[in-house]
Amino acid sequence: MGNISEGDDVLLYLDGSRTYMIRVEDGKQFHTHKGFIELGALIGVSFGSRVVSSLGIKFYALKPLITDRILKTDRRTQVLYPKDVGYIIHRLDVGSGSRVVEAGTGSGALTMALAYAVRPDGRIYSYEINPRFQRVAMGNIERAGLLDYVELKGGDVTQGIDEEDVDAVVLDMATPWLVVQLAHDVLAGGGVFASFSPTIEQVMKTVSKLNEHPFVEIDTIELILRNITVAENRTRPQTRMIGHSGYITTARKVQNDGK
Amino acid sequence: MGNISEGDDVLLYLDGSRTYMIRVEDGKQFHTHKGFIELGALIGVSFGSRVVSSLGIKFYALKPLITDRILKTDRRTQVLYPKDVGYIIHRLDVGSGSRVVEAGTGSGALTMALAYAVRPDGRIYSYEINPRFQRVAMGNIERAGLLDYVELKGGDVTQGIDEEDVDAVVLDMATPWLVVQLAHDVLAGGGVFASFSPTIEQVMKTVSKLNEHPFVEIDTIELILRNITVAENRTRPQTRMIGHSGYITTARKVQNDGK
Amino acid sequence: MGNISEGDDVLLYLDGSRTYMIRVEDGKQFHTHKGFIELGALIGVSFGSRVVSSLGIKFYALKPLITDRILKTDRRTQVLYPKDVGYIIHRLDVGSGSRVVEAGTGSGALTMALAYAVRPDGRIYSYEINPRFQRVAMGNIERAGLLDYVELKGGDVTQGIDEEDVDAVVLDMATPWLVVQLAHDVLAGGGVFASFSPTIEQVMKTVSKLNEHPFVEIDTIELILRNITVAENRTRPQTRMIGHSGYITTARKVQNDGK
Amino acid sequence: MGNISEGDDVLLYLDGSRTYMIRVEDGKQFHTHKGFIELGALIGVSFGSRVVSSLGIKFYALKPLITDRILKTDRRTQVLYPKDVGYIIHRLDVGSGSRVVEAGTGSGALTMALAYAVRPDGRIYSYEINPRFQRVAMGNIERAGLLDYVELKGGDVTQGIDEEDVDAVVLDMATPWLVVQLAHDVLAGGGVFASFSPTIEQVMKTVSKLNEHPFVEIDTIELILRNITVAENRTRPQTRMIGHSGYITTARKVQNDGK
Repeated sequence: MGNISEGDDVLLYLDGSRTYMIRVEDGKQFHTHKGFIELGALIGVSFGSRVVSSLGIKFYALKPLITDRILKTDRRTQVLYPKDVGYIIHRLDVGSGSRVVEAGTGSGALTMALAYAVRPDGRIYSYEINPRFQRVAMGNIERAGLLDYVELKGGDVTQGIDEEDVDAVVLDMATPWLVVQLAHDVLAGGGVFASFSPTIEQVMKTVSKLNEHPFVEIDTIELILRNITVAENRTRPQTRMIGHSGYITTARKVQNDGK
Repeated sequence: MGNISEGDDVLLYLDGSRTYMIRVEDGKQFHTHKGFIELGALIGVSFGSRVVSSLGIKFYALKPLITDRILKTDRRTQVLYPKDVGYIIHRLDVGSGSRVVEAGTGSGALTMALAYAVRPDGRIYSYEINPRFQRVAMGNIERAGLLDYVELKGGDVTQGIDEEDVDAVVLDMATPWLVVQLAHDVLAGGGVFASFSPTIEQVMKTVSKLNEHPFVEIDTIELILRNITVAENRTRPQTRMIGHSGYITTARKVQNDGK
Repeated sequence: MGNISEGDDVLLYLDGSRTYMIRVEDGKQFHTHKGFIELGALIGVSFGSRVVSSLGIKFYALKPLITDRILKTDRRTQVLYPKDVGYIIHRLDVGSGSRVVEAGTGSGALTMALAYAVRPDGRIYSYEINPRFQRVAMGNIERAGLLDYVELKGGDVTQGIDEEDVDAVVLDMATPWLVVQLAHDVLAGGGVFASFSPTIEQVMKTVSKLNEHPFVEIDTIELILRNITVAENRTRPQTRMIGHSGYITTARKVQNDGK
Repeated sequence: MGNISEGDDVLLYLDGSRTYMIRVEDGKQFHTHKGFIELGALIGVSFGSRVVSSLGIKFYALKPLITDRILKTDRRTQVLYPKDVGYIIHRLDVGSGSRVVEAGTGSGALTMALAYAVRPDGRIYSYEINPRFQRVAMGNIERAGLLDYVELKGGDVTQGIDEEDVDAVVLDMATPWLVVQLAHDVLAGGGVFASFSPTIEQVMKTVSKLNEHPFVEIDTIELILRNITVAENRTRPQTRMIGHSGYITTARKVQNDGK
């Protein structure tokens, strides 16, 4: 992953529950309750290296992964978990060159993951009705260096989608059923649809709409993630867990008229 | 997704439990218990279109997704599920340009998903000690059009890994703990490690080894997938489910000597 | 648990997946593909003893537990699992002396468990509209020696419940919401209500009805049971599992008028 | 459930997350941040009735269930959840007349549930090495009116069990494998064994010991409980949940010598 340069984002790792995302600037210091770190001293050091604070505390300088960026994202909107993001991207075949419509952008968390997956020649068309969310998302996506792969679009996605023949439509919004007809219109033949919804009522309405259009392989799943403590004589699933984030409904567009 | 050409793989969809992967060849017929389909008639038709068999039964001609290819893979070895594959790829930041070491290749199922994710300029170095598995994998990967992104390597990965400074190491093998030291050696600083294992004893041994080397963020998780039936007055998780595929352990390499 | 007498039910255990429920009769033989067993030879032997078939195969003579009887019950209707039965009985405080209304009786599986719990001086009033089910249930309950604690009632429970001031009402029927008002009428103050339903639509309707009456502590839960294989280097949750049996909704009756 | 008498325990229910266990004494007041309640005024009122505090806030006077008593138990030791308690009691056939050995007593939570189940003529022999826990347990069990059915025993259960021919042995202790041999000794033929353990290492050691003795139907399970929010357009499993309490291992004693 190479060496750290001025202007790079770095994830300073203190321990399993404390990490800090900083931008490297020569002459600046990053202060923590464990002492400060001279950020200029990171320049030229390889990612993964140990750095020591002014109080002698050990940190590691990690290159932020997309999952780190999502976790550090401004959480004014709900954020999807890696289990859900990874499933959607893999299940929908989102990869280099894919053209994907997303709504809503929210904080840009899923947008970043999609953009990372379609590099270098794909594109995410991400709709968001709330201008404040859109500004936050733009900042997050730009900082991740992924803005070249994203077109941020304002307006109400339930009123129309500008793109055509897209490979996938991904919905993380309160009323996905209002976009099912439009999704069918803009998807290429065989294109894939995914919707993420916390409640079963949202799922019922969305699946009902999908059933009214030429879609096949309409599936709803839920992913439950268990964290396992692995340590001698203490190995067990952890006591507290996230019991539910949301349901994921997927489908594939087909065409009855051979077009 | 464009139109179907001679030589393309096509997934013929009959219903939710019956799909057939065929290769389009002019003059050939594909026979099912629902009549035959003239494969030449598919040429020039758009993906997602309806095709009708000689007995008047409706099929849809879908472009195979990576998840379809994995499902249709020769199953002489165990195959990972989309929930696990998607989580590993996303969690490990595998994307365009990534260089990834994988072991073992098995049937090439995970290899295909990794190769799809690193296009166009990344590379998967996939180790497999069993030549028969390797031949099967090569066939699967080639048919998926992904062989350009994969280097299939024979020999015993526990004896050595040729690559250096790779972004990720992904293990789906019986004795992952024997590769932990080597994984640390060949990973770039901050590089990510993942191991998939069905049993908790494998996890215990692997985590114990990880703890002996400079790795941080050592986590073990398990993903449970529930299929939900969504239909009026019948909405519920399905009665039968896969209760367990395996545990996923991830970690990030750090360096104590600043190298 | 004492010694086996003529007329006792005995569970002949061959291995983890093969058990046979028989009634001890002197002079009779029980034939299996592993040879026959002289049932008279069991008389006077202690429960838990080994018996050997005519072909020299080892069986164990176990006293049937309620869970064994439920498993061996005529399965013309769906049967609840031990996880659900145990939860309902414990959560509802069903114990010696409790008076419980149940509907529907079905095969009598839950009825037996309830009757076993209320011995020696409690009583289960079990409603079943289908006379055929009722006959099957009576046979099962009688064979288990629990008929003294059960009153089997015909007719449509949605049209009326004869009992008053009961401690608990337990519903395992297609339309539990139609019995909520009646359940409130016949429950003693502070009495407990439980309903078991496979679908979420049933739960929604039942909870909605509960909310219209003076009930508190209205809770819906679901229990997921995982079988764990425990064996050296093979310890793991089992691959195949029952993903869902049903939701359990519980509530407690209160009274706004102080009566 | 009758009317409230002086000296009764009453669960004052304010809302879904606030309940208070009090003992009714004429002339006493129970003070909350919602005003005080004259406890004498409860005498003669039926359980389930509404009572109003000095500030006009509505409470309900519920009869404490065993599950309420367990929840209110002094939590100096870990407490089992209703899902686990109900499963153990039902799976082990614990009912009226059963004689059960339990270790350790802990706070008496499981002891109370077992004692409630064996009334009026069964008995729980409960071992606890820590005298302080034993005193706490005695208080809890006595308050629940269940001390007649319990024999609290001091000393180290791994050194010996005084009882013979018991119907069940239930272990909730750190080292259950040290009691497997003794459990086999004191169980009646066909008698049932259960052990509750948070970690998989405890399970492995216990199952390994069970395999060395004549036990059949050795099973390990785990129960996962999901709380479901049921409300219009908000129906979904709850976000936060208890991910793991412990594993339950059960087995049945058999005898190879026909004794």
